[in-house]
Amino acid sequence: MAKTVVKYEDIEDVNQFPIGQGLTNDIYAKCLSILAEGDEKIDEIDPILEALHPADIADLIERLPLNKRENLLKHIPAEYLGETIAHLHEEAQEATLTSVINTVTPEGFIQAVDSLESDDRANLLRAFEELEDIKLKREESLLTYDRDTAGGIMQTELVAVSGEWEVGEVLEYMRENKEKLPETISRIFVVAHNNRLLGSISLSRMVRKSLDQKMEDIMRTDSVVVPHDMPKEDVAHLFEKYDMYSCAVVGEGNKLIGKITVDDILDVIIEEQEAGVMRAAGLEEGQDLFAPIIFTTKKRFPWLFINLLTAILASVVIGNFEAEIDQLVALAVLMPIVASMGGNAGTQSMTVAVRGLATKQLTWQNAGYLLWKELRVGGFNGLALALLLSVGTVLWYENPTLGYVIGAATIINHLLAAFAGIVIPVLLEKMGKDPAVSAGVLLTTVTDVGGFFSFLGLAALFLM
Amino acid sequence: MAKTVVKYEDIEDVNQFPIGQGLTNDIYAKCLSILAEGDEKIDEIDPILEALHPADIADLIERLPLNKRENLLKHIPAEYLGETIAHLHEEAQEATLTSVINTVTPEGFIQAVDSLESDDRANLLRAFEELEDIKLKREESLLTYDRDTAGGIMQTELVAVSGEWEVGEVLEYMRENKEKLPETISRIFVVAHNNRLLGSISLSRMVRKSLDQKMEDIMRTDSVVVPHDMPKEDVAHLFEKYDMYSCAVVGEGNKLIGKITVDDILDVIIEEQEAGVMRAAGLEEGQDLFAPIIFTTKKRFPWLFINLLTAILASVVIGNFEAEIDQLVALAVLMPIVASMGGNAGTQSMTVAVRGLATKQLTWQNAGYLLWKELRVGGFNGLALALLLSVGTVLWYENPTLGYVIGAATIINHLLAAFAGIVIPVLLEKMGKDPAVSAGVLLTTVTDVGGFFSFLGLAALFLM
Repeated sequence: MAKTVVKYEDIEDVNQFPIGQGLTNDIYAKCLSILAEGDEKIDEIDPILEALHPADIADLIERLPLNKRENLLKHIPAEYLGETIAHLHEEAQEATLTSVINTVTPEGFIQAVDSLESDDRANLLRAFEELEDIKLKREESLLTYDRDTAGGIMQTELVAVSGEWEVGEVLEYMRENKEKLPETISRIFVVAHNNRLLGSISLSRMVRKSLDQKMEDIMRTDSVVVPHDMPKEDVAHLFEKYDMYSCAVVGEGNKLIGKITVDDILDVIIEEQEAGVMRAAGLEEGQDLFAPIIFTTKKRFPWLFINLLTAILASVVIGNFEAEIDQLVALAVLMPIVASMGGNAGTQSMTVAVRGLATKQLTWQNAGYLLWKELRVGGFNGLALALLLSVGTVLWYENPTLGYVIGAATIINHLLAAFAGIVIPVLLEKMGKDPAVSAGVLLTTVTDVGGFFSFLGLAALFLM
Repeated sequence: MAKTVVKYEDIEDVNQFPIGQGLTNDIYAKCLSILAEGDEKIDEIDPILEALHPADIADLIERLPLNKRENLLKHIPAEYLGETIAHLHEEAQEATLTSVINTVTPEGFIQAVDSLESDDRANLLRAFEELEDIKLKREESLLTYDRDTAGGIMQTELVAVSGEWEVGEVLEYMRENKEKLPETISRIFVVAHNNRLLGSISLSRMVRKSLDQKMEDIMRTDSVVVPHDMPKEDVAHLFEKYDMYSCAVVGEGNKLIGKITVDDILDVIIEEQEAGVMRAAGLEEGQDLFAPIIFTTKKRFPWLFINLLTAILASVVIGNFEAEIDQLVALAVLMPIVASMGGNAGTQSMTVAVRGLATKQLTWQNAGYLLWKELRVGGFNGLALALLLSVGTVLWYENPTLGYVIGAATIINHLLAAFAGIVIPVLLEKMGKDPAVSAGVLLTTVTDVGGFFSFLGLAALFLM
């Protein structure tokens, strides 16, 4: 199934080991130039695709602009098509599937899909469901689970035996059924009749037991099991925390319905991480670099619109001090400094808080300690920056009061930033919202409004 | 070694499965209240600590403010001490080690450390090296590898056999040496004399072969191996891409020196992800929420100082237009809107580019396509927002020219933002810098300066 990645024999000098192996820059450039020449030279791509691992072909697809992809798809060897598509990110996967329908026969495609493991297969079939113009037999049992739960990421291929069995019998069973059983087995599950889960043992532990020991005597009953509807992020958290390799997934009545292995979890974590970074910038367009322009434009607009409203809010605050600015135009020159520095300091506090909430180190109970710490850190740094800024302002504008005012506003805004940086994410979390998504916009609104108001307000009090 | 987490027997209803198991909010609150009462009631914490998994005790430590931690440390059962410390994040680990020295005898501690696997042990010993006041026997062989390379994260416990051996012999060897061999074995390595790596086979594949087959006939020679000095992020990328469970680490002359398993990679990825988010906000203080105030303040200051300089640069641009603002104070009210909207749009383009670079989907070769796409997306969204903003400005200030000026400046700044959002990270990557760290600051400098300059400059041309 898997293709050659690197042969040990070929490694003469370990320092020459090719990182990012199959799809080197040379190969990538070669593919680009073949595709650029159009239909004439396209057959030259065949030997290259045959030499690449499906994961590398998927990489190649994702690096290509949309209009070059279809040409490539026709040339992917049929036996790697399913695996290649399984390696694509979600959005590129759906776009690619649509193209595939035009280029591959449904039978050929079903065959490709059938060669995959159950979790990859379920994902592909789910994506297909959304494409109206193709009908494909659905695997009801797998598709009933929500994609974002343990049931959605589990594999149904596993080895489950009775507690009566001896180790030797289990090994014999594995040898005799090697075609039927999954390629990788790291844990053997022990079940009662009705498939009720009783316990499990890792393969590496089991092979070290005497052949005549009974499974029920050597199985462990204290390993983690997860219910099918546990959110996949929570499953990932368990794997990370307890250094697990695999775990059982159970349905009603503690029935064993599947297993999750750590490589599935790796995907969940990376996906979640990327989605988090994207959402924090208001990007909901998915992860295909070359999605269509109109699609991308529409997806990004709402976020920019929200930011327009918050920017207008800040400018309304400034509008209330038109008279003061009219009298002393230096205020207009200096006010963005106060606002922007508060925003940066607040982002630091917020980042610490968001991360603490994600790792569950920061809780409702200890938030008070952290707030008090951040207020002091913000206060000290605000004081240091205020000194620098005050001295600079006095030297530049030769107006000592203006110096005091900008210094005081800087300290006030740093304290406000530290407060908002902790309180906003903690409250969002308490309200069941994802703090990574909306805390940033709320925070900069607070620090902009706070920065402009404290600076212009103090100026109105002491300078006019 | 590992303690009870959840017993299958106790799970009546799968929906009651306790997420985040050992350290529930109730238990955490109980611990906090015991610690708050001081020395009198402290013994009440013993039964709680005994019932927790070491990973949960580590969690508890990280959630506690510094001054409460030492009291807790004294009460951690000796047999879990090593594992608990191994579960801590790097910075909390070092701080905790310092405290441990005051509370545990060196002998007791060495014993705790010795119970760990080699990679955890090496990490702890490395941390100890930095503490001057303790002398501990060092494991030269492990500590020679850089913490950030394959050698630094590998385990030296592995099963390596000769190619002459038959499957039955290997299983026999594993049964007889169960005390000496690592707890978890997922891959058997085949080596020549001199420990030169010849191939390997996964345990789950091996147990399905006939007992009389020779290892050299069933081993695979096409699995990924990594050199000891490959950066750990590159190793993680290989695991992710090729869905690997474990791989061999080789030194000079292709000698087998260790193995890396996917659970180590999980830690690398999570660590890297967290470090990336933190660095993007200029946070170098590490990941201990409750690090000392002065330490945190100092670590954060340089970033804020850099941002002060960029804010001053933007304000110098404004200062050049004092005469225009003096004449039309509405300019001061509106200018932050143009700058801030450009910043938000640019952050979207930049986030897409930084992620594309990280996943290697964005390359030097296809950056042109992406730039052209982002310029069009930025242009369309800039146009839509410019229309809204122009209409609003005309209605509010009853000054049509001011409306045109703010509209034109908005479009210009959005195009500039899209350009800078792609070009800055791509250039940083080309220069060998981490774009996730410094792209943000450079980008907002461009969009602030660009926003103020285009708006005030156009105003000077058409309104004065």
